[in-house]
Amino acid sequence: MSEYRFPRQDAQFVLDHIVNFSGLCAEIGHDDLASGLSDAILDEAARLGEQVLAPLNKVGDQQGAVLGEKGVEETAGFAQAYKQFAQSGWPSLVAPEAFGGQALPKVISTAVNEVWQSSNMAFALCPLLTQGAIEALLTHASDELKETYVTPLVSGEWTATMNLTEPDAGSDLAAIKSRAVPEGDHYRITGQKIFITWGDHQMADNIIHLVLARLPDAPAGVKGISLFVVPKFLVNADGSLGERNDAKAVSLEHKLGIHGSPTCVMSFGDEGGAIGYLVGEPHTGLACMFTMMNDARQGVGLQGLAISERAYQHARTYAQERIQGTLRDGSRVNLMKHPDVRRMLMLMKSGVEAMRALMYLASATGDQLEHASENEAHALQARVDLYTPIVKGWMTELAQEVTSLGVQIHGGMGFVEETGAAQYLRDARILPIYEGTTGIQALDLVGRKTLSDEGQALTLLLQEVETELANMLLPDTLSGALERCQMGVDNAKEALAYLLANPKQAPAIGVNLMMLLGYLLGGWLMLRAAGKAQELSKQPSADTAFLMTKQQTAHFYCEHYLPRIAMHLAIINAGGESLMAIDEAQF
Amino acid sequence: MSEYRFPRQDAQFVLDHIVNFSGLCAEIGHDDLASGLSDAILDEAARLGEQVLAPLNKVGDQQGAVLGEKGVEETAGFAQAYKQFAQSGWPSLVAPEAFGGQALPKVISTAVNEVWQSSNMAFALCPLLTQGAIEALLTHASDELKETYVTPLVSGEWTATMNLTEPDAGSDLAAIKSRAVPEGDHYRITGQKIFITWGDHQMADNIIHLVLARLPDAPAGVKGISLFVVPKFLVNADGSLGERNDAKAVSLEHKLGIHGSPTCVMSFGDEGGAIGYLVGEPHTGLACMFTMMNDARQGVGLQGLAISERAYQHARTYAQERIQGTLRDGSRVNLMKHPDVRRMLMLMKSGVEAMRALMYLASATGDQLEHASENEAHALQARVDLYTPIVKGWMTELAQEVTSLGVQIHGGMGFVEETGAAQYLRDARILPIYEGTTGIQALDLVGRKTLSDEGQALTLLLQEVETELANMLLPDTLSGALERCQMGVDNAKEALAYLLANPKQAPAIGVNLMMLLGYLLGGWLMLRAAGKAQELSKQPSADTAFLMTKQQTAHFYCEHYLPRIAMHLAIINAGGESLMAIDEAQF
Repeated sequence: MSEYRFPRQDAQFVLDHIVNFSGLCAEIGHDDLASGLSDAILDEAARLGEQVLAPLNKVGDQQGAVLGEKGVEETAGFAQAYKQFAQSGWPSLVAPEAFGGQALPKVISTAVNEVWQSSNMAFALCPLLTQGAIEALLTHASDELKETYVTPLVSGEWTATMNLTEPDAGSDLAAIKSRAVPEGDHYRITGQKIFITWGDHQMADNIIHLVLARLPDAPAGVKGISLFVVPKFLVNADGSLGERNDAKAVSLEHKLGIHGSPTCVMSFGDEGGAIGYLVGEPHTGLACMFTMMNDARQGVGLQGLAISERAYQHARTYAQERIQGTLRDGSRVNLMKHPDVRRMLMLMKSGVEAMRALMYLASATGDQLEHASENEAHALQARVDLYTPIVKGWMTELAQEVTSLGVQIHGGMGFVEETGAAQYLRDARILPIYEGTTGIQALDLVGRKTLSDEGQALTLLLQEVETELANMLLPDTLSGALERCQMGVDNAKEALAYLLANPKQAPAIGVNLMMLLGYLLGGWLMLRAAGKAQELSKQPSADTAFLMTKQQTAHFYCEHYLPRIAMHLAIINAGGESLMAIDEAQF
Repeated sequence: MSEYRFPRQDAQFVLDHIVNFSGLCAEIGHDDLASGLSDAILDEAARLGEQVLAPLNKVGDQQGAVLGEKGVEETAGFAQAYKQFAQSGWPSLVAPEAFGGQALPKVISTAVNEVWQSSNMAFALCPLLTQGAIEALLTHASDELKETYVTPLVSGEWTATMNLTEPDAGSDLAAIKSRAVPEGDHYRITGQKIFITWGDHQMADNIIHLVLARLPDAPAGVKGISLFVVPKFLVNADGSLGERNDAKAVSLEHKLGIHGSPTCVMSFGDEGGAIGYLVGEPHTGLACMFTMMNDARQGVGLQGLAISERAYQHARTYAQERIQGTLRDGSRVNLMKHPDVRRMLMLMKSGVEAMRALMYLASATGDQLEHASENEAHALQARVDLYTPIVKGWMTELAQEVTSLGVQIHGGMGFVEETGAAQYLRDARILPIYEGTTGIQALDLVGRKTLSDEGQALTLLLQEVETELANMLLPDTLSGALERCQMGVDNAKEALAYLLANPKQAPAIGVNLMMLLGYLLGGWLMLRAAGKAQELSKQPSADTAFLMTKQQTAHFYCEHYLPRIAMHLAIINAGGESLMAIDEAQF
């Protein structure tokens, strides 16, 4: 069984040469990070992930959480690992110092989160959602609520959940029925929520549920939902824990994957109403939810990268060790020698590296935004807004292909659960669904992020990509790859023009546009990496084998992934007519 | 829960208008079939599949086979279903009359097998493998062996298995180590085989293992393997069953899917050697194996179609029933109204119909071959040979996408096992692996089927497609679709030219060429269907809604699938250099 190793060298390369980490540190006044602190952080994270969390990954798959007398009991070993995780301060990386946080840049937290998600995605979902909840509380909650709830979440003593979905309201939040009735300084919450990740467990002393519900005077639709804090245990004035609140996990889903992560049906108010506290103004739940969600969406995109990396490592080890086939001289060879296995491995490797580059870049752009002057903020916000659905949508879709290739490389052994390759495929299958399906990401991209500003933000991004490509210094061997990527920019412009001219087709062409942009951004960053690698390889102490491999991987990516851009464009240009042509009764 | 329904109307359309079934019946002297008998057969098969086998599909998934005291015990209910299946004569459809068969054309059997595979793929694997074994025995075994073994297999009293794979010999049969030592009129077989589908069960009185092993004087490599019949129970001279043979299932795999199908580790000769009988000449096992395998490969392609159809039906029902979203007028709508859900459903529907057309055509071509004059036989054999890897490779790969779309349409519910959508994805994942991986199919296509005749068979096929497209009478709305398909033919010719000019790149480009051809053949047949539909819609009694839908589905297929052809060509034209560039140590 292959063990997981954090791909430290590639992550460092992306930090140093794709996102200009030291420049970012200087910009945001954190020079200590560039000069050693970030190394220590990444080394420590890798150690915990590789040694503690990764070995629990299969255990969680085989012995998922169960609903017992005390509520949900997580997989044996998870609680101890969580304690170690929290005590080491990992939940506090990006939180403000005022709440016990370390105020580190998001991009460092992203690299660290890659470790957690690759090591054990089911486990790492718990801190991922807690992080989103912290963001939402910091942005929208009153000082009093922040004081009570944020610090113990930052310390990891407590965890948090997002309670959005109801049986009749999946992607359609307008249909939410849960109710909140005012009672003194708090509200009484009643309703049922489904698909609540880590909705209950015994790893932390308290669980803070962020719950969408309607006030009695709420208008219909999404403009009538509000966000509430509903703690599992009520919190006394001194911060100590009081009574058990009327909020319970009543059943667990039997899922295709992420068995280690309990997915709960939560019932609020079976005994008269759970006590909850309003976050922000009444009827502004959607905005609060989006703060939480945007954070979580990038986090799910990161899961796409992370599970792909894990699947890649597993397949790579198998391809190296498995002897299959005989050369003419009688010597037997490993799977690596077979061109089609190589093709699959290279699709995995180059796909993972392109995702990592885009992921860290999107995250670093978030850091720039946080420290931006008023002048720069608008453009940076637009850029982050544009990246989010692509990171979530494209990367989680690509993760389906990468994890499936991981199974295929194992041949028959890939279909046998003991091998472990199938778990990554099963686990990955949730990624294009939760926190907004691929279709929802695409609607966000074409609607809120593109049509609403008449394509300005996207045009600006494409111009920047075009300019950078035009000025890139690349080895001659990559001239074809560069041309492909430049053609991709032209294709993207054409697709955007189609969208702007045919806004009614937006819902029909959205996914194809989103995928097109994902592949293009991946190609742009892979070529940026190749250019940097060539430049760096002239330095005397350079790891020339690694740097040459970066260039060759970019080459492969451009040859094997970029042709998909023209395919997506052709589909976009065909428009949406043939989608809706058939009468419903004829399906 | 949606129930499975055999898509009788589409299957009949393909039989009547894509493969010219009545012409075929006349050609092979089976006019009774065209005039009613085939209707009765398909109706009966649909009834058994829908009512008996389909309800056991989920049961098999949840309560897979177990290894007990008696050997392997299959899922409760399977034995009774199998008895009904055998007693109704279904295993005997295509077998010769001399052995109790009905000598019906393969294409009818293919339509019937679609029912079994859609209803319950895990169950249907058992007769599928038995069918392959019958073919191998009929083609290669002595009259004595045929007399003893074929009739009870045809009647369904016994079932059969294929014992190829060993722990160190997956796709690489040269590495087979099982041994066969002569002893009087029989041989003593020893060795271990893995991944033996339905290697043991209690549904039939006897199980006939076809086992690849080496004789003591065997040359090394694939030229030294022979095929043996190894019955679970020895057969007395009068046909009655004798002693238990020294061949046992010693463990079962814990698999991602097809839980209802026991996948056995088989041990031969633990107590001195299993008694076996040589099939054909010594050292000709590979040829025997290919007879069995070619039949099974088309059968696995059919599984790709069948599980896709099942997943499509499941997703369609959900999309019709699930209410999600609200129109401006306040009315709530089902998922079907959402363009991106439609896009996914149309990808499923049109993909399934293209697969069905190709599957039945390949099968009917096999019938023509069987009844061909010497003059025609060569070309027909070449055509069947060409279709086989495309049917197996392209259709099982497409089934991954279609079953995954089925999960996606269900949103969060798709990830919950109770829904049932995830089972199709899990079950389908074996299809591009067993009976030769996708990579192996591609090697077969580019090597044995294309380079070895300098591309003649493929050139001929492409010419026929081109000529038919040039003469097609299609509605004006499909002129763009037709052009796309014609461009696809040009792309395919270019890809073939690349292969012929760069034979060393064959293993690197094979999968892309195979996928390219699959999409192209699908487009050709969808357009053939559209042309026939337009023609038929002029008849007074025509089902015009169905016929219009056929045209619209073809339209969608051409717009959404055919752009993949140029993508595959671009990858092929890039060659294989970037695949192998990276040093193994750098992965």
